[in-house]
Amino acid sequence: MRLFRNDYSELAHPRIIEALRRYQDEQNDPYGLDYHSKNAEKKILEIFHSQKGKVFFIAGGTQTNVLFISSCLKHYEGVIACDSGHINVHETAALEGQGYKIITVKGKDGKLYPQDIERVIRYYDNEHMVKPRMVYISNSTEIGTIYSRQELIDLYEICKQNNLIFFIDGARLGSALTSKTNDVEPALMGEVCDAFYVGGTKNGLMLGEALVINNPILQENYRYHIKNKGAMLAKGYLVGIEFEEAFKDNLYFDIAKTTNEMADYLKDGFKKLGLETLESPTNQVFLITTKDKAHKLMDRYGCEKWEDLNEKMIIRFVTSFLTKKEDIDELLSYISSL
Amino acid sequence: MRLFRNDYSELAHPRIIEALRRYQDEQNDPYGLDYHSKNAEKKILEIFHSQKGKVFFIAGGTQTNVLFISSCLKHYEGVIACDSGHINVHETAALEGQGYKIITVKGKDGKLYPQDIERVIRYYDNEHMVKPRMVYISNSTEIGTIYSRQELIDLYEICKQNNLIFFIDGARLGSALTSKTNDVEPALMGEVCDAFYVGGTKNGLMLGEALVINNPILQENYRYHIKNKGAMLAKGYLVGIEFEEAFKDNLYFDIAKTTNEMADYLKDGFKKLGLETLESPTNQVFLITTKDKAHKLMDRYGCEKWEDLNEKMIIRFVTSFLTKKEDIDELLSYISSL
Amino acid sequence: MRLFRNDYSELAHPRIIEALRRYQDEQNDPYGLDYHSKNAEKKILEIFHSQKGKVFFIAGGTQTNVLFISSCLKHYEGVIACDSGHINVHETAALEGQGYKIITVKGKDGKLYPQDIERVIRYYDNEHMVKPRMVYISNSTEIGTIYSRQELIDLYEICKQNNLIFFIDGARLGSALTSKTNDVEPALMGEVCDAFYVGGTKNGLMLGEALVINNPILQENYRYHIKNKGAMLAKGYLVGIEFEEAFKDNLYFDIAKTTNEMADYLKDGFKKLGLETLESPTNQVFLITTKDKAHKLMDRYGCEKWEDLNEKMIIRFVTSFLTKKEDIDELLSYISSL
Amino acid sequence: MRLFRNDYSELAHPRIIEALRRYQDEQNDPYGLDYHSKNAEKKILEIFHSQKGKVFFIAGGTQTNVLFISSCLKHYEGVIACDSGHINVHETAALEGQGYKIITVKGKDGKLYPQDIERVIRYYDNEHMVKPRMVYISNSTEIGTIYSRQELIDLYEICKQNNLIFFIDGARLGSALTSKTNDVEPALMGEVCDAFYVGGTKNGLMLGEALVINNPILQENYRYHIKNKGAMLAKGYLVGIEFEEAFKDNLYFDIAKTTNEMADYLKDGFKKLGLETLESPTNQVFLITTKDKAHKLMDRYGCEKWEDLNEKMIIRFVTSFLTKKEDIDELLSYISSL
Repeated sequence: MRLFRNDYSELAHPRIIEALRRYQDEQNDPYGLDYHSKNAEKKILEIFHSQKGKVFFIAGGTQTNVLFISSCLKHYEGVIACDSGHINVHETAALEGQGYKIITVKGKDGKLYPQDIERVIRYYDNEHMVKPRMVYISNSTEIGTIYSRQELIDLYEICKQNNLIFFIDGARLGSALTSKTNDVEPALMGEVCDAFYVGGTKNGLMLGEALVINNPILQENYRYHIKNKGAMLAKGYLVGIEFEEAFKDNLYFDIAKTTNEMADYLKDGFKKLGLETLESPTNQVFLITTKDKAHKLMDRYGCEKWEDLNEKMIIRFVTSFLTKKEDIDELLSYISSL
Repeated sequence: MRLFRNDYSELAHPRIIEALRRYQDEQNDPYGLDYHSKNAEKKILEIFHSQKGKVFFIAGGTQTNVLFISSCLKHYEGVIACDSGHINVHETAALEGQGYKIITVKGKDGKLYPQDIERVIRYYDNEHMVKPRMVYISNSTEIGTIYSRQELIDLYEICKQNNLIFFIDGARLGSALTSKTNDVEPALMGEVCDAFYVGGTKNGLMLGEALVINNPILQENYRYHIKNKGAMLAKGYLVGIEFEEAFKDNLYFDIAKTTNEMADYLKDGFKKLGLETLESPTNQVFLITTKDKAHKLMDRYGCEKWEDLNEKMIIRFVTSFLTKKEDIDELLSYISSL
Repeated sequence: MRLFRNDYSELAHPRIIEALRRYQDEQNDPYGLDYHSKNAEKKILEIFHSQKGKVFFIAGGTQTNVLFISSCLKHYEGVIACDSGHINVHETAALEGQGYKIITVKGKDGKLYPQDIERVIRYYDNEHMVKPRMVYISNSTEIGTIYSRQELIDLYEICKQNNLIFFIDGARLGSALTSKTNDVEPALMGEVCDAFYVGGTKNGLMLGEALVINNPILQENYRYHIKNKGAMLAKGYLVGIEFEEAFKDNLYFDIAKTTNEMADYLKDGFKKLGLETLESPTNQVFLITTKDKAHKLMDRYGCEKWEDLNEKMIIRFVTSFLTKKEDIDELLSYISSL
Repeated sequence: MRLFRNDYSELAHPRIIEALRRYQDEQNDPYGLDYHSKNAEKKILEIFHSQKGKVFFIAGGTQTNVLFISSCLKHYEGVIACDSGHINVHETAALEGQGYKIITVKGKDGKLYPQDIERVIRYYDNEHMVKPRMVYISNSTEIGTIYSRQELIDLYEICKQNNLIFFIDGARLGSALTSKTNDVEPALMGEVCDAFYVGGTKNGLMLGEALVINNPILQENYRYHIKNKGAMLAKGYLVGIEFEEAFKDNLYFDIAKTTNEMADYLKDGFKKLGLETLESPTNQVFLITTKDKAHKLMDRYGCEKWEDLNEKMIIRFVTSFLTKKEDIDELLSYISSL
């Protein structure tokens, strides 16, 4: 029986492990200066069409967020984010711990809109308040929604008008860009923001995120910054090898697509059983059910409580690159039996 | 031809890669709460005889140093270290970047002695100066020397007398404890300091260091602290699996022993050729040679310049778990030909 | 014509200046170790009934808040505050700049209630979220309201039950404790919280706040902490002299009372003119008026815009120790003429 | 009997107190936006010939150092200073507490030289080490020595060649510029560094330092930065009034000159008594004497122990704007009697 707790319960896709085995004896330059990292960087810049970009491979998502945001802001400057944003809720004050304030806005469906940003700029207008300097979103969002092409373009536009840096957290970028309702081509990413990252950990890699800084001004002395924050891996080629493999033959997007298909299959299954779900076009599936059933499902499938809703509860199922139809069928049949 | 640049040029020992392959499909609890990490912790506490200790697996060495030191100090407190110490010279101000001052002392042969600590305590005696609160050493040291059993006991004693926390950086602990001149048994480590770490990255693991906090008072809310510093890996079981394997059948110490034997073989070879080296009983070998030869050797073998000595130069060779006698013979024969 | 911009537009009460003049030639111990500071401390501990307390004199309010909060929290711990709280809105991210997250709640009338705190504790319940560790309120609040005796007692109770430190910002404590509707005697302050401060800057002193730490555990090495944060004044006796004078013959509370009386006189005046105000029992007076009149008043009297209300606007008038009835009469007569 | 402990034992010069009294009732714009601060700024820029400079008034010296240095550096960048420098020894890790590393060099007579800087730049040459970005000196230095005109010019030259910011701590700038051996005219200060400060606290003001940032690039958003560090005084005009007065009729330099003259008188007195002193042309006087006499003098005159010298000791006497010849005569006569 397979758990549906999250998309990082399994170590890595077999091809990733195989690539590591292939190079286990090879001597490589340390600290990410090896040829695997260079190959992976080149491929990523190509696919995401980042013409003047640079890529930095980082071990984890929270670390990547903190690294990039802290490299851009002065301590009197703040980053605008949804109050449901990962950096605000689920990183144990990692960003504030480094000295930076998050300016939270309500947003809608886990997403930020130009008018949210305009409202912040009007309000934070004097030197006794933090100075807005960056906009942070994630795609897909904390609640599995995605941004459209036009929405990203509009956000970048409002950012440029107001001298704000635009950063996209892509911990689940694969899932966003391969969703059935997505209209963002990968090549837009290199042009529609100052920086973004391509999440590996939640998309079948063992560990690692590829931070792409499109804006050359923001790349300066970046390796110094990474080292200063304790985030430079001695064996940086480890992550280089993973991403090199992930962007061969479209593996990265194939993993994401499969994961999404399994999530769709699960949503369809819930629907056929007459169960209620939240709208979410990616690999996080939110089921609304009674507290009693919710607890049984959490105990058995490791899925997590998302929110209490009076007598009901929202619980989250996540599919991964290893989820199979049989696993879902088993889950659905168990639910029917409740 | 094999390079002698450092002990982290190769990805990992074959048994480590094999262990990862073995568990690639297994679903594990995230964030280091899995059974592999628990097994590895248990084994490590046993071997190093840490009776009330806890183990935390961290991705890299600089991160481990910063994490532990920052968890112990208030910002007005400082850590005493050799001026040649890794935290002082080779971490791009990572510790100061988190808000903590290093109190440097000269030391001798890369090592700290009780009288160094006493001198610091006498000097930093009022509220306009940083307050000494911790002693940091590494074993083996930056220049490959090691501490004796009695030296460690004496340092801990002086620390306890002065309310100082004693922390041992063990990035190359394996090499230290398996050196021919070593008299520190692993079981001493759990009793002779407040915390230490067992280095994986430089001892045949892909990545990861095992931080052992012997002193229960210093363990409080540690997982919050790790997350706050962006150092909690989603797939923490990755490092758990590595250390579980490393402490099966003595693999960890076997790797270190082999590495040291190769270093000894290299030192002997230098000696036979009438070449001068620095005293170093571990896997870093320091050769004193002419600038001309030094540059040729650095170009060919990736070894690093350590220090200029008037017309001569000290260069560093490091052996790893993959260094073979043939590699060394080839190197020695090349030197003869110069 | 007198401005109503704020209560720190005038340098100091004549008796404060006179005290400084009196001691201008006297040689004093530096860094707050002088006898004036000791006298002032003794008097403050007596009046506010802080039996094991210590007093630290700090130059300004933001600095005092940051100092105290940063001395209590680990970087993974957060402080609960009203979203309208001074530390959240009007300190240019000073607290986050030092590495600490504010957990904001809506509150009511600028005030926090036990149920707000309980809600936070239930929600922030795991290591991926910041850990609540302190409650921050101000009395009077940002919008001039005050806490009752019972409300403070209830807040402290809930704090103690949940291992939270309770800190009261008293930038305008004088005005709160001398308000007509106040039922908090000064002697309660020493018993109802872990720390609070007695604001000088906004109550007729030239500069300086008296931080009173009731809880002995939180006093440890405090002078080191102050110096580390750059907040130790070489001529600390300057603030000591001011507070020594302020707590002779009840001057501190007399200033506050006069200031409140002028505010009441102003509120009465507005009422007689049929103008609408917000409920506020201290020296901040909030007038709701048309945008047109608001702008005229702001131009002429330096009062500040507080909030837009559709076609209307809330503007803030503040009385000080120098405000006279004539000044208010002049203002009221000007308004009548609009 | 007058103490010789330091130059901040007395509150302020009578003219400073008188100025404060003069304006005690005046309503002023808060936060340093008042006309006194503007007048003082204008005068200071004129005297020190800072053509594009801006002046920011800060409460104390440690705060000013931390503020300016932290506004210039990224956390991976370091500031070069003498190991005897105030920021390194006597500020309780205030700078490191904000996240910045000090690169210490030995220097000579408390002073830094171009070759010291060149040596640092050669050594700190890669991304695993902190990146040198600023040079910090003080004039006069911690041990009372001063820089010559040419020395300052040479230091600035080497800084510009190496993209280093040059900052001069002027806590005792008055004493330096009025020393008998000084050849630096005030007008050089605006041209020979990126920033410096004009110390008030140790030169007869009640509190306050005037930070002059000559380099326009380093002025950006400076008021935000000050507020973020908790260093913006609500009644900023307080310091404005002091400096306005200090730079009327040359008061600032008159105070410094008198102070130096008294120090010279003291040094002459020591000499006549056959006592040994260190070379120091400003208002700190260092006497070398037996331990026994040293302790008697410290007990009676509050002077401080500077350093142990085998059987002897160096103790420091400091003259202030209130030191009189009679005070010195009394001291000398006491010494004769020992």
